[in-house]
Amino acid sequence: MKLYENPPVDLWNKLIKRPLFNCEDLHDTVQKVFTDVEQFGNQAVIKYTNKFDGVQLNEFEVSKEVIRASEEKVSPQLKQAISLAKTNITKFHRSQLNENDDQKVETSIGVKCWLEKHPIEKVGIYIPGGTAPLFSSILMLAIPAKLAGCKEIIICSPPNKDGVLSDVLLYTSKICKVDRVFKIGGIQAIAAFGIGTESVPKVHKVFGPGNQYVTAAKQYLQNYQIPIDLPAGPSEVLILADDSATPEFVASDLLAQAEHGTDSQVILVSTSKELINKVLKEVELQIPSLSRKHIIKKSIKFGRAIWFEDVNQAIDFSNAYAPEHLILVTQNSDEVSLKIKNAGSVFIGNYSPESVGDYASGTNHTLPTNGSAVQYSGVTVDSFKKSITFQTLSPMGLVEIGPYVEKLALAEGLDAHKNAVSIRLKQLNKTI
Amino acid sequence: MKLYENPPVDLWNKLIKRPLFNCEDLHDTVQKVFTDVEQFGNQAVIKYTNKFDGVQLNEFEVSKEVIRASEEKVSPQLKQAISLAKTNITKFHRSQLNENDDQKVETSIGVKCWLEKHPIEKVGIYIPGGTAPLFSSILMLAIPAKLAGCKEIIICSPPNKDGVLSDVLLYTSKICKVDRVFKIGGIQAIAAFGIGTESVPKVHKVFGPGNQYVTAAKQYLQNYQIPIDLPAGPSEVLILADDSATPEFVASDLLAQAEHGTDSQVILVSTSKELINKVLKEVELQIPSLSRKHIIKKSIKFGRAIWFEDVNQAIDFSNAYAPEHLILVTQNSDEVSLKIKNAGSVFIGNYSPESVGDYASGTNHTLPTNGSAVQYSGVTVDSFKKSITFQTLSPMGLVEIGPYVEKLALAEGLDAHKNAVSIRLKQLNKTI
Repeated sequence: MKLYENPPVDLWNKLIKRPLFNCEDLHDTVQKVFTDVEQFGNQAVIKYTNKFDGVQLNEFEVSKEVIRASEEKVSPQLKQAISLAKTNITKFHRSQLNENDDQKVETSIGVKCWLEKHPIEKVGIYIPGGTAPLFSSILMLAIPAKLAGCKEIIICSPPNKDGVLSDVLLYTSKICKVDRVFKIGGIQAIAAFGIGTESVPKVHKVFGPGNQYVTAAKQYLQNYQIPIDLPAGPSEVLILADDSATPEFVASDLLAQAEHGTDSQVILVSTSKELINKVLKEVELQIPSLSRKHIIKKSIKFGRAIWFEDVNQAIDFSNAYAPEHLILVTQNSDEVSLKIKNAGSVFIGNYSPESVGDYASGTNHTLPTNGSAVQYSGVTVDSFKKSITFQTLSPMGLVEIGPYVEKLALAEGLDAHKNAVSIRLKQLNKTI
Repeated sequence: MKLYENPPVDLWNKLIKRPLFNCEDLHDTVQKVFTDVEQFGNQAVIKYTNKFDGVQLNEFEVSKEVIRASEEKVSPQLKQAISLAKTNITKFHRSQLNENDDQKVETSIGVKCWLEKHPIEKVGIYIPGGTAPLFSSILMLAIPAKLAGCKEIIICSPPNKDGVLSDVLLYTSKICKVDRVFKIGGIQAIAAFGIGTESVPKVHKVFGPGNQYVTAAKQYLQNYQIPIDLPAGPSEVLILADDSATPEFVASDLLAQAEHGTDSQVILVSTSKELINKVLKEVELQIPSLSRKHIIKKSIKFGRAIWFEDVNQAIDFSNAYAPEHLILVTQNSDEVSLKIKNAGSVFIGNYSPESVGDYASGTNHTLPTNGSAVQYSGVTVDSFKKSITFQTLSPMGLVEIGPYVEKLALAEGLDAHKNAVSIRLKQLNKTI
């Protein structure tokens, strides 16, 4: 890790920079796949599954039987762990359901306004494949989708070389009440979500992690007016710690982040040079025992350890970096946490490793990366809803505000807007 | 308007289609302006303001003096109307501030999670120019931004031929406590928002209506990871009415929508052929007296009047169309409104013309168009906020869920994630 001491503010822009993540060069590939899926539907999906995943499939949907059968193939211990995670994620996300909805507000006498949140009917969830499928992302996306009331929850995930999906993925889909699961991956999966084919229904919003191809395809969905959960980037952690932090723990959290990929971002910010030194030593001690050390060694090299004399500078730096994950281990961490303005998810104290949030504390692990925590939220129940506003005016209500609306409409040169009010007021004056 | 009777469901896709709104052909122009603003900052803005707006400006920011001076130049009647609108918009949007935030949830013993909403610090609001500036959009965007707690609210609006902005626009900015106002329009304004120049600060999210150039530029902001309020399209209304509706009123609402532009969408859906006939006659009667009849005649030609025998089919059609504005005037409109699943804003009853929502009922007029009400919300206070989740585990809390997290992490092949838990549990077991 690279060391910095009291970096001046004008150096921060360099220190908060992430590696460029450009999808422009994938644009043509993505466009081609989307055009083909639009034109040839399933046939295009078959073609690209063969081309990109090296599997020949003619039927993509996983049958109810196969999904049911997955139950026996997952170990009881793992089922128990998934169940605990499901319980906690459900508890926290249920608390996001807002009873305040639909409260009617009388803005003027006889003018009632209210807002209702309604579920997005059909949502697509993409789950990457590979040796270890991220079934935890199903928990993080299907649970809030169900709580929101989505009618149809559909998963696409790339088949392995044998043309199947892992049992734990299918089992998790089952207990999360996912409606349909398709063995489709990459760009063609996102295209199927956005356009729909003979087998795959077109969805209204697309969620889930993925590699650069999936990310580029999700961006391309904008052209189909289909929103996505978040702009994706490499995962990252910033740890803000002082002498109250246990160096071994801090090191293990940096390494947990570093194992995600060679482009993972790890940053340690501290007011204690002693802690920084101890942590750097611990990092070296722990690496050898870790199975993904080959990845870790690459990513940790680009890590940064930054010493600030003043804790408020350290906090300002963290807010400027706007980390996806922020681990906070300081004397008065509650006080410090009140000053956090930009972050995806915050982990407070020595016993709150980031990995608990990835799986089972209850918070969502679908979080803004690449500094976008400045303006984006992680996934919540509201990510699966949209709101509708309502208003109803009594005759009295229109008499109250109508004359003002007439003036405002005229001032904007819209006299048909004015007329819609005038014609009603005229009739009311007659009847009064 | 074109008439349809009981159109079969398989015809609906044709009937709910909007005119294609493609920005792809503007892509090169937009890209050029953004690249220039990135490279030359203010100089590029000066160049394009000259080129596109035909005005030579070297200073873009409107001075506090000029803004203050606008106050005397707006009529007391208009000020009074703006003040009423401001009051109602504030009342309704304040009700969206959710006291439930920050409630801590104990998902497992010793595991506390909570969610905090924080304001997006800097937001940009674009206000189109032209003969009649849409100052109402300032009310609709600056008021919720202030309520959300945004630190810096910045307006860009194109200067007129004399290089100034209208007094009512400046006055409205002033009473809405907008921080800075710039005389910049079109693509170069959106580029300045997204990139920042020597004068214009880079913002974190961009809001506001605009022509196709502004829309294309707002879409392009995705490349800078800057979100926008909504994908824009032509404005539209669907009126769902039966014999309980007053034909004159319905006609006036169709015409109010039609005056927006030649591409405005107006649809009348009814279970009463008699009402449809009366409304169509009324439309012809009212047009001649309207100042924007030249626009209205063009857009109304593409309007649709659709008769359904069954009211539930009419409702299903409305949900399939997902109108920006839905006017509901039926016998049991409260009951019908419960079946509305997709719409931007709903106006219930004979005395709730759509124009009250454009200005003064209190609801927001920045709404999803082009069918995107299926998955997008209109602007709310939350559009100016993002959420951060927090969690803190006591030693007991980690003992509770740690062993499960270890299993889940291993199942995903992430043993450094497991290790971050194990290393803590080991230490706790020692100390226990």
